[in-house]
Amino acid sequence: MSIDINNYLSDNAKNMRRSAIRDLLSVANKPEIISFGGGFPNQDTFPVEDLKQIMNDLLTEEPHKVLQYGSTEGSVLLRQQLAKKYQADGLDVTEKNIVITTASQQAIDLIARILINPGDTILCGLPSYLGALQAFYSYQANPVGIPKDEHAEVVVKTLCALGKKPKFIYAIPDYQNPTGVTMTMEQRLEIVEVAKKYDLIILEDSPYKEIRFDGESLPTIYSMCPERVILLGTLSKTFAPGLRLGWVLGSEQVIEKIIVAKQSADLCTPILNQELAGRYIASGKFDENLKKTIALYRGKRDLMLECLDKYMPEGVTWTKPDGGLFMLVTLPEGYDARDLFDLAIKENVAFIIGEVFFCDGGGQNTLRLNFSYVSDEKMVEGVKRLATATKKLMGIEE
Amino acid sequence: MSIDINNYLSDNAKNMRRSAIRDLLSVANKPEIISFGGGFPNQDTFPVEDLKQIMNDLLTEEPHKVLQYGSTEGSVLLRQQLAKKYQADGLDVTEKNIVITTASQQAIDLIARILINPGDTILCGLPSYLGALQAFYSYQANPVGIPKDEHAEVVVKTLCALGKKPKFIYAIPDYQNPTGVTMTMEQRLEIVEVAKKYDLIILEDSPYKEIRFDGESLPTIYSMCPERVILLGTLSKTFAPGLRLGWVLGSEQVIEKIIVAKQSADLCTPILNQELAGRYIASGKFDENLKKTIALYRGKRDLMLECLDKYMPEGVTWTKPDGGLFMLVTLPEGYDARDLFDLAIKENVAFIIGEVFFCDGGGQNTLRLNFSYVSDEKMVEGVKRLATATKKLMGIEE
Repeated sequence: MSIDINNYLSDNAKNMRRSAIRDLLSVANKPEIISFGGGFPNQDTFPVEDLKQIMNDLLTEEPHKVLQYGSTEGSVLLRQQLAKKYQADGLDVTEKNIVITTASQQAIDLIARILINPGDTILCGLPSYLGALQAFYSYQANPVGIPKDEHAEVVVKTLCALGKKPKFIYAIPDYQNPTGVTMTMEQRLEIVEVAKKYDLIILEDSPYKEIRFDGESLPTIYSMCPERVILLGTLSKTFAPGLRLGWVLGSEQVIEKIIVAKQSADLCTPILNQELAGRYIASGKFDENLKKTIALYRGKRDLMLECLDKYMPEGVTWTKPDGGLFMLVTLPEGYDARDLFDLAIKENVAFIIGEVFFCDGGGQNTLRLNFSYVSDEKMVEGVKRLATATKKLMGIEE
Repeated sequence: MSIDINNYLSDNAKNMRRSAIRDLLSVANKPEIISFGGGFPNQDTFPVEDLKQIMNDLLTEEPHKVLQYGSTEGSVLLRQQLAKKYQADGLDVTEKNIVITTASQQAIDLIARILINPGDTILCGLPSYLGALQAFYSYQANPVGIPKDEHAEVVVKTLCALGKKPKFIYAIPDYQNPTGVTMTMEQRLEIVEVAKKYDLIILEDSPYKEIRFDGESLPTIYSMCPERVILLGTLSKTFAPGLRLGWVLGSEQVIEKIIVAKQSADLCTPILNQELAGRYIASGKFDENLKKTIALYRGKRDLMLECLDKYMPEGVTWTKPDGGLFMLVTLPEGYDARDLFDLAIKENVAFIIGEVFFCDGGGQNTLRLNFSYVSDEKMVEGVKRLATATKKLMGIEE
């Protein structure tokens, strides 16, 4: 008979929340179900043949380097390649401003670890990325969301008056997860002003920025205020999530703190994976492949919007993302996406209920759809099924 | 002008300690220096050609699986292969008792995270593995060491009387880092008795167990008391540290808690790396290769002992490990390994000062030597140089 581990848990552990996405997806884990649930990139974007070649080169030319321990800050080659991209965007940074992490989930975790004390307030979007909220909860923080049409300053002012000044602002400015919405230039400027006025750090999470379908890319918040922004990037959406490669861009002082935290968290990220990515970016093929990914996802976004338009009943609305992997569907007031989920599973289609992204417990009538993963054929069929379930929910005859 | 991040740090961050090993090794990072410092496996043990083949097979047969997100608990194949090894040792476990981690450093970190509250006492060896101490400090724990010739129960009793009952016991029973010493059967039984009597968890860290040179392997503490032991394993010393693959073996309840913690820590360990290791172990080549590794390291241990005997001055002593990668050298009372380090660097040889492994601030006259990494030729020359530095320290004419 084993001891009950619940009697030994830390306060951090008691505050941890199991991923609702994981639980929802486990229900949806049947081959007949078409899933818009996960945030998976499309497998057709993986540059398999190029990776095979580079991996073979690496294991032929530098096996003793790539199979050995690497440094905590990460591969010089990869950090230089990433720095070059930022330099091309006009940022005054070098590889010394970058630490490689075991994908950007670890970057969020390490920053939470070095900044959050139990009870700290973190300002975030309403809704916001569940994985970040989970990390914040696991350090006993209280995430507070900025309501959709509210100004960040109003919320910060109120929090300060209550003695709950935020420790930092967590923002995903480009094609946010879960809404797909992009912050306007005015909103970016405003958040920088608020950060300066109230002496706040901004954590800018930027996993999708390079996947833009239409129009011009807006500048990073980092570029507007490098002195108080920590920027996170990842190769999970533009390259291959199976490699687990992300990074933090920040002042050398911030990077040094993250290196110390990472030493005890996992010592280093696999050097084999880092050198693979470094060589791939250096070859110029990363940029070529990214263009194909963008074209593929643009087509999928268009198809999903078209299908939603065609099949969804009156009263249901959705966001129209300029990039990224997600859109948010809103049911008419009063309907609950949990009820829709049950009906949808019966129709063999799955999604993520939106409320898991709302730290205030709201968003009951919303659902997140991913459009990057499924084939075009399945997407059409999946939206049809979702529309059928939605009509059943709303009592509309087909 | 960037903000000063020190003004925003969490209490956890303030308690973090930069790795002394990292700092010591940065001094030793010159080609002319022979380093006994790091805990690197020998590069000749990396099965490069086999890995190249398996990697090519993986990227040919299952590219979409190994480049995509994996599950948080890890590859079924790898977990099954690891479970099979434990089953062969007579343990009643399945893959459900295993979660894969980003090497065992992450396993230590996640267990610290789910168990430690600030101020908690952790019982450990004196000395003990620095990376574990770092992880404990980063959650604001107070590690307390069991003195060399003291019984664990005496220490636990004293701590309980002081209201500082340990949260868990951290032990490395086989060829411990940094001493290379192995716990006897009596010591294992004693620690289990203490854990039962005082209702403690035991964290059994077992990175070197398979690398035994002489005699019979002693049973794991886990096998003696599976209900209150959490066992950690890694492929970093027996396969390739560059892949970052470790694991936790425990009750399904413990594994579930670690999975939730890992979700927000890094979501999952690279599935590519896991499948590579899983296939390699399944092929039977892992066990073949391990035999060669053991033979290689046995020879290196013998050579280091022989050289120490031959060159070191009277009064200096050292451990004689039955396995693993390390031995601990003790200088006569009153001499400081920091002074020896400065002299050794002048002679172009490096090691890790022992005191970084002593959580009580002791061990000033000790140093850790690694015998797995350098070539035989360099080992002879390195020990000669170390002996020269030691004689200088002790004022002995060559």
